[in-house]
Amino acid sequence: MKKYVFGIDVGGTTVKCGLFTVKGELLEKWEIPTRTENNGAAILPDVAETVLKKISEKNLDKEEVAGIGIGVPGPVNDQGEVAGAVNLHWGYVNLADDMEKMTGLAIKAGNDANVAALGEMWKGGGAGSDSVVMVTLGTGVGGGIINNGKIVTGVHGAGGEIGHIHVTDDVERNCNCGNRGCLEQVASATGITYLANRRLQKDDMPSVLRNGQVSAKTVFDAVKAGDALAMEVAEEFGKYLGTALANVACVADPEVFVIGGGVSKAGQVVIDYIKKYYTANAFMTCKQVRFALAELGNDAGIYGAAKMVL
Amino acid sequence: MKKYVFGIDVGGTTVKCGLFTVKGELLEKWEIPTRTENNGAAILPDVAETVLKKISEKNLDKEEVAGIGIGVPGPVNDQGEVAGAVNLHWGYVNLADDMEKMTGLAIKAGNDANVAALGEMWKGGGAGSDSVVMVTLGTGVGGGIINNGKIVTGVHGAGGEIGHIHVTDDVERNCNCGNRGCLEQVASATGITYLANRRLQKDDMPSVLRNGQVSAKTVFDAVKAGDALAMEVAEEFGKYLGTALANVACVADPEVFVIGGGVSKAGQVVIDYIKKYYTANAFMTCKQVRFALAELGNDAGIYGAAKMVL
Repeated sequence: MKKYVFGIDVGGTTVKCGLFTVKGELLEKWEIPTRTENNGAAILPDVAETVLKKISEKNLDKEEVAGIGIGVPGPVNDQGEVAGAVNLHWGYVNLADDMEKMTGLAIKAGNDANVAALGEMWKGGGAGSDSVVMVTLGTGVGGGIINNGKIVTGVHGAGGEIGHIHVTDDVERNCNCGNRGCLEQVASATGITYLANRRLQKDDMPSVLRNGQVSAKTVFDAVKAGDALAMEVAEEFGKYLGTALANVACVADPEVFVIGGGVSKAGQVVIDYIKKYYTANAFMTCKQVRFALAELGNDAGIYGAAKMVL
Repeated sequence: MKKYVFGIDVGGTTVKCGLFTVKGELLEKWEIPTRTENNGAAILPDVAETVLKKISEKNLDKEEVAGIGIGVPGPVNDQGEVAGAVNLHWGYVNLADDMEKMTGLAIKAGNDANVAALGEMWKGGGAGSDSVVMVTLGTGVGGGIINNGKIVTGVHGAGGEIGHIHVTDDVERNCNCGNRGCLEQVASATGITYLANRRLQKDDMPSVLRNGQVSAKTVFDAVKAGDALAMEVAEEFGKYLGTALANVACVADPEVFVIGGGVSKAGQVVIDYIKKYYTANAFMTCKQVRFALAELGNDAGIYGAAKMVL
């Protein structure tokens, strides 16, 4: 009988590792450095080594290990092949096959944003539902869509690329993706800073934001303090993101939206601004969905990776 | 061994019926009237009767019939329960259970737009792919999303409600759904007529559209004849729909978009206007998807209904 499962989250700097029970209890977590030199050739052998070492250290019977789930920052298809991952210096990698050969264990692989969404569905803000859309508001806007408990990968690995929904013609620069007017440009931490600076330059309305550094955090701190200009910026953010998520609901129609990433640390106020415009624009049967803050933080990836195997 | 399957498409006026081989060959199709009186209480018994009569008429062995697939104009959950269907005068109906009791055959039920999408995936414009988004441009804008060969129903039956994606703040009236600025208001046959009339009123630019009735058909006829005003209208239509589909691709990431409904009868020119704005706004990995015209016309529903069973 299977008792244990490993969840691995490969990032550009560190590889986060977790040993779980099959019920989802995190028994131990640790990190190893991500060695990106030589096109990241050492990354998978390092992961295999640390897992096998843990099995031996804990005196686990390999037969009791259900397998290893691995999230990576790049598009991954259903066969566990990675098309490429810039931050790992990877070109094409047959991750599932390579890892299975090195460990003799069952391997599942997925895109890190999708895998984090699965983690939040399993043990985080989306727990209790199997149809969850997760939005990660960090430097960019990441997304992951879980439908009936399964990640929606998409034919080109773009399932859940919510950050690149076109939301406005009113920005001056191109997005990193090459298009212009992506959600990421106005709803990520960077995007909120952009909206705030643009608003500050528009006129000389007083604001505490004029006294120090402008960031997503200082904007939402100012909102909580009742700063009128910051509240205008939050409205604009909420309009872009809330409307985009209403449109996502017309396609994926989830039960829960989970909001994570650095911006979500501001708490319920972020959800309140999103929900206002979500509710105004969502299709009638979808207006009452649940919005939840992410709960697993940086551990969402290892939880979701483990869940992929089960 | 199963050899046959029935596909039924229940509309507000007629019920379309098809007898298929399990390989998808349409052996015979026929229609019966939809009797909506008494809250549509006769509709399902009528369907059961016509199917059983066909089995007897054709001397089929019931053991050889895989089942009956039924599409209805309302939200249907995975258990085959219909929450309600205005055009059939139905409230809640446990379609799958009721039909199984009346026929002794396996029953599958689905929303008609989703079922039509499945039909086009199986034997129409999306054939060869199992990840298809279908858009039906009729009086409204219908949608159906097929991911890995399965309909995306959504938690509230709103999966594929593409017509209610918010695309503009620049319309004067509310949509039938109660919101304002839905895709349906500017990309359906009705929506194109609205855009054309609005453009005609804006100034007195000459156009053949000033000489007769304005409709989606006359607009695209005028486009083909090189009418400059009609081409402006088609650009606006293409911008709304192409951008909306680019956003759909960020969520569902299909292999093929199938464009159907009355508007699509204008042919490739419709796709050309959509693709221009789709390509400009789609996420990089999705820019090269295939666009196809629907091929099954009014038979898409019976094909898709049959496919649901298989």
